[in-house]
Amino acid sequence: MQRTQAPIGVFDSGVGGLTVVRALRAQLPGEEVFYLGDTARVPYGSKSPETVARYSLACARFLLKYRVKLLMVACNTASAHALPVLRNAFEVPVLGAVEPGARAAAGVTQAGHVGVIGTLGTIRSRAYEEALKRLNPSISVTGQACPLLVPLAEEGWTDDEITLAVARRYLRELAAKDPAIDTLVLGCTHYPLLSSMLQVAARDAFGRSVTLVDSATAMAHAARDVLVSRGEIQVESLGERSMGGQLRCFVSDASRLGELASRFLGESVGDFEQVDL
Amino acid sequence: MQRTQAPIGVFDSGVGGLTVVRALRAQLPGEEVFYLGDTARVPYGSKSPETVARYSLACARFLLKYRVKLLMVACNTASAHALPVLRNAFEVPVLGAVEPGARAAAGVTQAGHVGVIGTLGTIRSRAYEEALKRLNPSISVTGQACPLLVPLAEEGWTDDEITLAVARRYLRELAAKDPAIDTLVLGCTHYPLLSSMLQVAARDAFGRSVTLVDSATAMAHAARDVLVSRGEIQVESLGERSMGGQLRCFVSDASRLGELASRFLGESVGDFEQVDL
Repeated sequence: MQRTQAPIGVFDSGVGGLTVVRALRAQLPGEEVFYLGDTARVPYGSKSPETVARYSLACARFLLKYRVKLLMVACNTASAHALPVLRNAFEVPVLGAVEPGARAAAGVTQAGHVGVIGTLGTIRSRAYEEALKRLNPSISVTGQACPLLVPLAEEGWTDDEITLAVARRYLRELAAKDPAIDTLVLGCTHYPLLSSMLQVAARDAFGRSVTLVDSATAMAHAARDVLVSRGEIQVESLGERSMGGQLRCFVSDASRLGELASRFLGESVGDFEQVDL
Repeated sequence: MQRTQAPIGVFDSGVGGLTVVRALRAQLPGEEVFYLGDTARVPYGSKSPETVARYSLACARFLLKYRVKLLMVACNTASAHALPVLRNAFEVPVLGAVEPGARAAAGVTQAGHVGVIGTLGTIRSRAYEEALKRLNPSISVTGQACPLLVPLAEEGWTDDEITLAVARRYLRELAAKDPAIDTLVLGCTHYPLLSSMLQVAARDAFGRSVTLVDSATAMAHAARDVLVSRGEIQVESLGERSMGGQLRCFVSDASRLGELASRFLGESVGDFEQVDL
């Protein structure tokens, strides 16, 4: 049964995944999107794989009550630990954060040297490295944890000399490990907010321009591919950007959201609906 | 019944509270200290007061199994939300993070203008403001949230130009709100690691030196007062610093601890014992 009219469901451990919603709404303007941020239990990065899988199942079940036609896991940690569990548990197609980003990076690197930046948890999981190696075993992958970029993005210092200095320091460490990198994966939902800073910092660190691959945009492209292949895409998503599908945002804890969320989404968020998971 | 030989119990949402243990071991070198970091559920700052109280009760029950003679709540959020519950539930004396820091600040301010820096949650709770007002209603209290200082301290950038630039920016915002501040409360377990940076930044922001009040040291002084008043202090704690009481560290999740913990404690931590709460 085709479910063209059904919404797309996106969940994340917090509000960072709204960058994925932003990319979705740019790519697929006719789609209705239901977003769930598990803000009561953020961050997932420091929790055990079993706990992350359990929380992810709860998030997925919540969104499936709305009969979503596609489930998107914006959280990198949940993508690393819960995708097989989710794909086993549900019939709906499930799209993670890592595979689309890795696929995009494998497609654009000329040198075959890819850098990945992310949280400590994402870099330690080696999820991007494994995904890239599966796509092309000859690609060399080097990771760099950038723990300060999330709080800098959340503080709103996105066009700022301090953020630039921090990004420069991290990317110089990465360039020292592999100076041949020509493609940099932004392996964290928060990083699209810092992409112009990261572009400048990468040029400084590598002495030339580096292609940034934004996982959020890559996920939106992948979502389009899945929906087209299943014949479940809204016609408005294929045309001009005039139609705006509805967006509903749910959170498991409502504290300190308003100020943050619109920064990530790039548009004002309506009311958040608080839910128990 | 006096329980001089019993340990002191300290809990925190994470490893930051080890700065309190460090101050305790400097002030009370003869005391045995049992530390519990609820690293599986860190941070408490974004959770509801009810949840924080429930988690705090679990931490307290765990430490009380070891018959601690004094329970210290190093976490500012838990101090703000759980102290009355803990004091109702248990007979052991309970010491929070806020009251000792507020008392120390009230004692040293000459101008009667106190600044408080902390996480967003601590500043929003107004816990230090309320505690200072209870001590002396004429004191003017101004808070400044400094969300980036915790990740900077955890990154280990404690003697660093970027950290200095961040501290300067926050303290200039504080000075703009009240230029008459002469005393600054470090209202977060992580900040003692940054105290030399904060001293420099405060001098820049206020154009003169400002007295820093470290909650961790204030808590250690208060612990000493409580134990002396109850006749439960180890004799070694009153003499020279030659005797080292035992330190045991428990955590509810063991990932990424080793590198962090010794930074906060100022000595190498032995094995962490992982526990279920």
